[in-house]
Amino acid sequence: MNKTEILTLLHGVQSGSVKPEEAILKLKLQPFEDLGYAKVDHHRVIRQGSHEVIFGQNKTSEQIAGIIMGLTHNGATNILITRLSAETAESLNALVPIEYYPIPKLAIAVRDTTKPKVGLVVVASGGTSDISVCEEAALTAETLGSTVTRLYDVGVSGIHRLLTQLDVLMSCRVVVAVAGMEGALASVIGGLVDCPVIAVPTSVGYGTSFGGVAALLSMLNSCASGVSVVNIDNGFGAGYLANMINQMEACQ
Amino acid sequence: MNKTEILTLLHGVQSGSVKPEEAILKLKLQPFEDLGYAKVDHHRVIRQGSHEVIFGQNKTSEQIAGIIMGLTHNGATNILITRLSAETAESLNALVPIEYYPIPKLAIAVRDTTKPKVGLVVVASGGTSDISVCEEAALTAETLGSTVTRLYDVGVSGIHRLLTQLDVLMSCRVVVAVAGMEGALASVIGGLVDCPVIAVPTSVGYGTSFGGVAALLSMLNSCASGVSVVNIDNGFGAGYLANMINQMEACQ
Amino acid sequence: MNKTEILTLLHGVQSGSVKPEEAILKLKLQPFEDLGYAKVDHHRVIRQGSHEVIFGQNKTSEQIAGIIMGLTHNGATNILITRLSAETAESLNALVPIEYYPIPKLAIAVRDTTKPKVGLVVVASGGTSDISVCEEAALTAETLGSTVTRLYDVGVSGIHRLLTQLDVLMSCRVVVAVAGMEGALASVIGGLVDCPVIAVPTSVGYGTSFGGVAALLSMLNSCASGVSVVNIDNGFGAGYLANMINQMEACQ
Amino acid sequence: MNKTEILTLLHGVQSGSVKPEEAILKLKLQPFEDLGYAKVDHHRVIRQGSHEVIFGQNKTSEQIAGIIMGLTHNGATNILITRLSAETAESLNALVPIEYYPIPKLAIAVRDTTKPKVGLVVVASGGTSDISVCEEAALTAETLGSTVTRLYDVGVSGIHRLLTQLDVLMSCRVVVAVAGMEGALASVIGGLVDCPVIAVPTSVGYGTSFGGVAALLSMLNSCASGVSVVNIDNGFGAGYLANMINQMEACQ
Amino acid sequence: MNKTEILTLLHGVQSGSVKPEEAILKLKLQPFEDLGYAKVDHHRVIRQGSHEVIFGQNKTSEQIAGIIMGLTHNGATNILITRLSAETAESLNALVPIEYYPIPKLAIAVRDTTKPKVGLVVVASGGTSDISVCEEAALTAETLGSTVTRLYDVGVSGIHRLLTQLDVLMSCRVVVAVAGMEGALASVIGGLVDCPVIAVPTSVGYGTSFGGVAALLSMLNSCASGVSVVNIDNGFGAGYLANMINQMEACQ
Amino acid sequence: MNKTEILTLLHGVQSGSVKPEEAILKLKLQPFEDLGYAKVDHHRVIRQGSHEVIFGQNKTSEQIAGIIMGLTHNGATNILITRLSAETAESLNALVPIEYYPIPKLAIAVRDTTKPKVGLVVVASGGTSDISVCEEAALTAETLGSTVTRLYDVGVSGIHRLLTQLDVLMSCRVVVAVAGMEGALASVIGGLVDCPVIAVPTSVGYGTSFGGVAALLSMLNSCASGVSVVNIDNGFGAGYLANMINQMEACQ
Amino acid sequence: MNKTEILTLLHGVQSGSVKPEEAILKLKLQPFEDLGYAKVDHHRVIRQGSHEVIFGQNKTSEQIAGIIMGLTHNGATNILITRLSAETAESLNALVPIEYYPIPKLAIAVRDTTKPKVGLVVVASGGTSDISVCEEAALTAETLGSTVTRLYDVGVSGIHRLLTQLDVLMSCRVVVAVAGMEGALASVIGGLVDCPVIAVPTSVGYGTSFGGVAALLSMLNSCASGVSVVNIDNGFGAGYLANMINQMEACQ
Amino acid sequence: MNKTEILTLLHGVQSGSVKPEEAILKLKLQPFEDLGYAKVDHHRVIRQGSHEVIFGQNKTSEQIAGIIMGLTHNGATNILITRLSAETAESLNALVPIEYYPIPKLAIAVRDTTKPKVGLVVVASGGTSDISVCEEAALTAETLGSTVTRLYDVGVSGIHRLLTQLDVLMSCRVVVAVAGMEGALASVIGGLVDCPVIAVPTSVGYGTSFGGVAALLSMLNSCASGVSVVNIDNGFGAGYLANMINQMEACQ
Repeated sequence: MNKTEILTLLHGVQSGSVKPEEAILKLKLQPFEDLGYAKVDHHRVIRQGSHEVIFGQNKTSEQIAGIIMGLTHNGATNILITRLSAETAESLNALVPIEYYPIPKLAIAVRDTTKPKVGLVVVASGGTSDISVCEEAALTAETLGSTVTRLYDVGVSGIHRLLTQLDVLMSCRVVVAVAGMEGALASVIGGLVDCPVIAVPTSVGYGTSFGGVAALLSMLNSCASGVSVVNIDNGFGAGYLANMINQMEACQ
Repeated sequence: MNKTEILTLLHGVQSGSVKPEEAILKLKLQPFEDLGYAKVDHHRVIRQGSHEVIFGQNKTSEQIAGIIMGLTHNGATNILITRLSAETAESLNALVPIEYYPIPKLAIAVRDTTKPKVGLVVVASGGTSDISVCEEAALTAETLGSTVTRLYDVGVSGIHRLLTQLDVLMSCRVVVAVAGMEGALASVIGGLVDCPVIAVPTSVGYGTSFGGVAALLSMLNSCASGVSVVNIDNGFGAGYLANMINQMEACQ
Repeated sequence: MNKTEILTLLHGVQSGSVKPEEAILKLKLQPFEDLGYAKVDHHRVIRQGSHEVIFGQNKTSEQIAGIIMGLTHNGATNILITRLSAETAESLNALVPIEYYPIPKLAIAVRDTTKPKVGLVVVASGGTSDISVCEEAALTAETLGSTVTRLYDVGVSGIHRLLTQLDVLMSCRVVVAVAGMEGALASVIGGLVDCPVIAVPTSVGYGTSFGGVAALLSMLNSCASGVSVVNIDNGFGAGYLANMINQMEACQ
Repeated sequence: MNKTEILTLLHGVQSGSVKPEEAILKLKLQPFEDLGYAKVDHHRVIRQGSHEVIFGQNKTSEQIAGIIMGLTHNGATNILITRLSAETAESLNALVPIEYYPIPKLAIAVRDTTKPKVGLVVVASGGTSDISVCEEAALTAETLGSTVTRLYDVGVSGIHRLLTQLDVLMSCRVVVAVAGMEGALASVIGGLVDCPVIAVPTSVGYGTSFGGVAALLSMLNSCASGVSVVNIDNGFGAGYLANMINQMEACQ
Repeated sequence: MNKTEILTLLHGVQSGSVKPEEAILKLKLQPFEDLGYAKVDHHRVIRQGSHEVIFGQNKTSEQIAGIIMGLTHNGATNILITRLSAETAESLNALVPIEYYPIPKLAIAVRDTTKPKVGLVVVASGGTSDISVCEEAALTAETLGSTVTRLYDVGVSGIHRLLTQLDVLMSCRVVVAVAGMEGALASVIGGLVDCPVIAVPTSVGYGTSFGGVAALLSMLNSCASGVSVVNIDNGFGAGYLANMINQMEACQ
Repeated sequence: MNKTEILTLLHGVQSGSVKPEEAILKLKLQPFEDLGYAKVDHHRVIRQGSHEVIFGQNKTSEQIAGIIMGLTHNGATNILITRLSAETAESLNALVPIEYYPIPKLAIAVRDTTKPKVGLVVVASGGTSDISVCEEAALTAETLGSTVTRLYDVGVSGIHRLLTQLDVLMSCRVVVAVAGMEGALASVIGGLVDCPVIAVPTSVGYGTSFGGVAALLSMLNSCASGVSVVNIDNGFGAGYLANMINQMEACQ
Repeated sequence: MNKTEILTLLHGVQSGSVKPEEAILKLKLQPFEDLGYAKVDHHRVIRQGSHEVIFGQNKTSEQIAGIIMGLTHNGATNILITRLSAETAESLNALVPIEYYPIPKLAIAVRDTTKPKVGLVVVASGGTSDISVCEEAALTAETLGSTVTRLYDVGVSGIHRLLTQLDVLMSCRVVVAVAGMEGALASVIGGLVDCPVIAVPTSVGYGTSFGGVAALLSMLNSCASGVSVVNIDNGFGAGYLANMINQMEACQ
Repeated sequence: MNKTEILTLLHGVQSGSVKPEEAILKLKLQPFEDLGYAKVDHHRVIRQGSHEVIFGQNKTSEQIAGIIMGLTHNGATNILITRLSAETAESLNALVPIEYYPIPKLAIAVRDTTKPKVGLVVVASGGTSDISVCEEAALTAETLGSTVTRLYDVGVSGIHRLLTQLDVLMSCRVVVAVAGMEGALASVIGGLVDCPVIAVPTSVGYGTSFGGVAALLSMLNSCASGVSVVNIDNGFGAGYLANMINQMEACQ
């Protein structure tokens, strides 16, 4: 129910075609759409080319297929399904055609490749162990409409590898810095670039990495300005936010 | 040393006015300016109206005044000094005129009020206990060039107070959500708005708030998309990042 | 041994039919029944329709069947068996007929459906991942005699879903708020309702959810009054307490 | 704005005396009162004899006096002010007469002693070190209308002291069990009584008490049914919840 | 009320001089003395020469003096007062003569030096920083009747200092091993001796000593058999237990 | 090398039959036997009826059989093998006859049942979940020569079960209190008895039991005197120490 | 690109054979080699006899074989592959001949046994459970060129075993002290020797060992000078650093 | 007692001038010097120019002066006193002339400036907040005989500042990397240099720095080889170890 609809409802009350008691019930059941909330959602669809993201874990292929159908009826395209096991992906694909990426366990349904990718998001990591988190971030941002460059060989223990990539780092709009172990990558990149850095700690490591806590703390304590942090292994969240920032319109 | 200067240096080598041995020394001493780094810094000044932020803690008023002088010579205005005690602020003001805000312990030197504020950053918090962190964020973003709206009475335990502010929340470009205790504010706002939310946990609370850890974990685990987190009590970092995102140019 | 029995014993001593030395032994062996404790247990049976709850984990089906037999001899009905694996449930059912609920791993033996359900307990959660904990709470409260309404789609990241359920929230006597991840649901509900809220953190989540610790801390730090917390994943404990509060008699 | 007022508003639209555009604005600004929320608040006042609790920490005596005045205008009595320092209490008392209790740092304004106390809440603790938390709980429950019995000498390391109080424990409606150190009191009481037990861990102790964490964990892991937990040192929260449960009306 | 007294009570019932209703009340009020508990306490006094230990923290000198008086009336001597500040000690001494030891903040009242010290307890520590905890342990054990030898210069980082004390270590009945920092002393002594070792972690240290947690964990993980651990800085508890073990009678 | 042997060696030097250079080498290679250490070991065998305990985990049946052979050659009997898997136990039994107890995963080799059991150790726990830890403690103490009484149904949430066992608790020489979850059993027993209590936290529980940490902290913070603690699940350590204390000789 | 090459490049610019624009590009792409970095790497190869260490985990045998080939082309020998599973080792061996050590899961390719081992590194541990970490350290140091002595039976709970090895401890250049559980070995050795001690905590243990945290904290808090610590179970890191220190050239 | 002395002792026994019983006593009292330990200490003096380091905290100026006197009698020079408060330093200086450095709270007594400094230790940190820890490390290493270069402006958030110092980093023998907050400096330096890096986490920071834990974890998880870690704020330990490594003699 958007602003137009509520006005129509109220005009109905005014004209006598709707009883006040009925109107109060409708308003009560949809308090938010009354307040213009749906318009925002509509806006999101137009700008980002997606209605919803489906968290695939603990859902059956039938449930997921059902949700995809529902979204498709509303015109959604480029629907993301995250944390989707290879088994569920296979049976889902028999119901609805999907593109499945096994490393980040992510699928895309109702792919619409006609929409152009815009801006530039860099997804950077120090090695190859974090690749599943990196790809979750990168594919999320790409699917939602961002151009993404991957820098997967730029760890701080060999700082020259990072420095040879200064050009791309300095020309991008957002960086997603993915790191396990000591998590220093976010700080070093934060000191080099002039754009927002979204740090993603990963659970890669052993011993005192404590499942990503060492990297998390390192990132939260970054001396560099412009760095913020998401949950351990939350590649999706970082990619979603990176795309959101990347697609910011000009400030009036 | 920017790209022009390094070309000049190399032309000097070419023409014989600079010896190769001298050139190699210069390159070595300024490896980064050789690589175009200074240009970025220059860019920052133009766009954000500030050269540098001074971390005031553990610095004497003389040291801070010296740094301000240096920055002023390079044309800097709107210089921020954070974590500045009232005592140091008083003696600093005798050396360099500053505007001092005692609650967030923040000062601004060489104020240039001619530059217009742009965009819209909302700084939201649930009560009045977090006000020093909120003001550090708000003043930082304002000083760096953002229009800021403060919503300081919108805690989740009285959700209607937040809901009456939906208009401003939905029209802003970035939200800084500041909360101690259970930190739920970031999730609730993240579920309402369609723009980046920077969550700032604060050390306000007692017992199991563990100096802000409860709020931090709550924020890192937010179910809402578009939420990222900075260090406990890091109002400055949130305000800096909020301004950076708020001033994003349009994406090509 | 209740108050009547101890008086009988003492009268026996008075009349000479019981020797003081025998009496002291009996008193020593049953110190609590001497003190009226059994009366309380008796009271519990009458009011709640259950003698005991059986913690099924690490017990064989034979052991559980034996306990059920014993309870039945004392007239117990609606006996709960919690944390019961599907395998044990199957072999138990061959010995004693049970109703088994596989998702919360809970069974009910000697079902007595003639007793009316009273009051209203709401079990609320933000998504579908917490459903096993929710159902453990809901079935426990129902079996012990409470009417239960389930609200399983009311997470704080889409606050409008919760707000459309204000009617049921405001008419119930107790709320069980189940949440993993950031655990904000308890605070938001606590701010909306005027009755006790029992918060159950769940181990659902990843990374910094730390197996439910993030939700636990969030709930313990709730700004809302009337909220208390039970152990992570302790659906049974919450359902038991919710029923106890729901069935409170009027205060004189 | 209650249900009657919104109907009046809509009838105004129907009759033409209110324009639809004005109505939509009013609804938007007060989304909750539209939904019957204020009625609940009204209900709270009637039943509990209090409008609001004032968190005194970090507020000036002038601010607190102002809030008390506001509440009094709406007919509130028995207003609680928690975490109020002796200094602020003294200057507040010059503005508004209060009863001040220095040990729990709690004050009561606009005392109305004509309302009867009802039911029975027991506040139990093991020693004298936890007395400030106990008194915060006890005074809160008393002020809100509950009869309170204090058992302050019943620690588990001398279990006979607790057992001599079985009569009062078994006749009360709610127990608030306050304990620092090992926090075993809640479990032992929970095993003895048949009513809700609200456990309050306190920060009393040293070394591995970790500021109340040992007691908190002990309480969360209680084997006894009917036990729930609030934040460390949160005497107010426990007293508030205890009164809420104690004043439950009979279940239909 | 001991076994004799309960028999007397029951004979009174038998003879008609006590009514059964009165008897039940008496039994109810003193459930434990009925069970022979007081006899145990009596036993303790005879064997250990002490009625009670007074925890001095947060008690006034008047309160402590009152307790001492009460204990003295029952014939107690060698009364320990722990965690007693120098100020309270001074004012207490004006009321009741005490021996005060400022380093462990411990006092002894009603000193009876005629009772012989028996057995041998060694209190060992690695340096001089832990001396207050050591002395609390040593004075406690001495006051309760044990001969105590202090070994305060036997840290593991200079193992030869410990080895030169093998004679005394091997001839004692119990060792109290006090250590902060890495806490290795308990393990090394546990590997050398053939008697119980009570390990006391102390909060001495900085950084990762985490207020005694490092030493605590080290001690709990000791590879040596016969080592058990008490709370951080709990010199009193260790001394009390050491004396209890030291004074064990021969096993039948 | 005992004191006699070193004297023989030195007399050999004195008489010229041993060269000083050879003597220095011998002393260097056996520094401890020179110092009378072996005599202590000899003492241990006589008093406790055992030479050594074998930690079975990660050892092959051949390795364990070899160690048993070696010990047997020196006259050892009642050799304990702890943490021995059922598989290794079976293959070990084919090499050396053992008694194997599957629940605590413990075996005894070269059983000598002629030695009398002495004293009394009580092993107490609240339920049946901790039984493997309990049995490890009980069998260890029994094998080393102590009489052991098991009290496995005495949890604090039903305190009357514990109180009916006061007789045995008050007549024993040492108590091993085993508890998971909230660990309150150690404090309650510590307040009832007058002998050393060795508390063993177990990893039984879920959620905030944190693998035994809740019980550990509860036990370390026990208000009762005479309680000390061993590592989580360390039944062997508790049984070993309990036997050591139980077999203390009379104090001179 | 070394110093000679950059001078050649600049002379090329000087002579006109290289355009300034081309030179700037080359400098940009290899910022570090410009600065003399490659010379260092060259130095490393000569001195340590190894080009690189391959982290085997999560790499296929084909990937590892490819890296080995590449390194071999550059003349590398004694290439270490760490954390290599038995399965991958087997398939790798079919591609490139390797020596595989299953306990530390470590392989060596292109073995060059002609290079002499120098110096002396001692790898010490208390038992046999830590052997995989010990061997990772020992084989790493040996492969990189150090003579290594293993002392695997020198735990602190039987300190005489350590003391009989004083000769080798006092004659070595570096000690790697490996310990789980209480981690006291590092402190005891640190107090005995006069050379750097690298402490390696291991995850061996149970309960409060917390996967190596107890040993880690113990080692970080060592009272002995000259002790530093690496990550839990990081045998490779310790062996690498031990070899680096062992092969230090004389100080000018 | 060195090897010569023990031989003399044994020759005394051989010749009859010393009785075997006397010899055994001497050996027992000095078990280590018998074993050649003193020779090592002697060695240390010669090589490092220092006998001992005095931990100044909690010692009186008289005690410290006494220890200095004792050491001086044995020819010690360059005696370090760490953690010495300004007050104690002043009163100590009245007894024994010292050089006092107020920032690291460190003093040097009996300065011998004739001994040359050797090798090269770099002490690096990211800012000025860590300066007291840095200076403790630097002065320790200098006093013990090492040449030290300080790099105090090389934080990773401005990586170019570090890169301009590559020359000194690559020519030194050991680096002490001091960092609070995110602690990334150790990893970045570890990736640049080819010598041992000793990482010192500092307690500088706020919020999630947790008093140095964030930096500690970051350093322990460093991806760079050759990095080891000491306790938080342990500048002395790092400086001591750095000097020890720096002064390594050539490996045979």
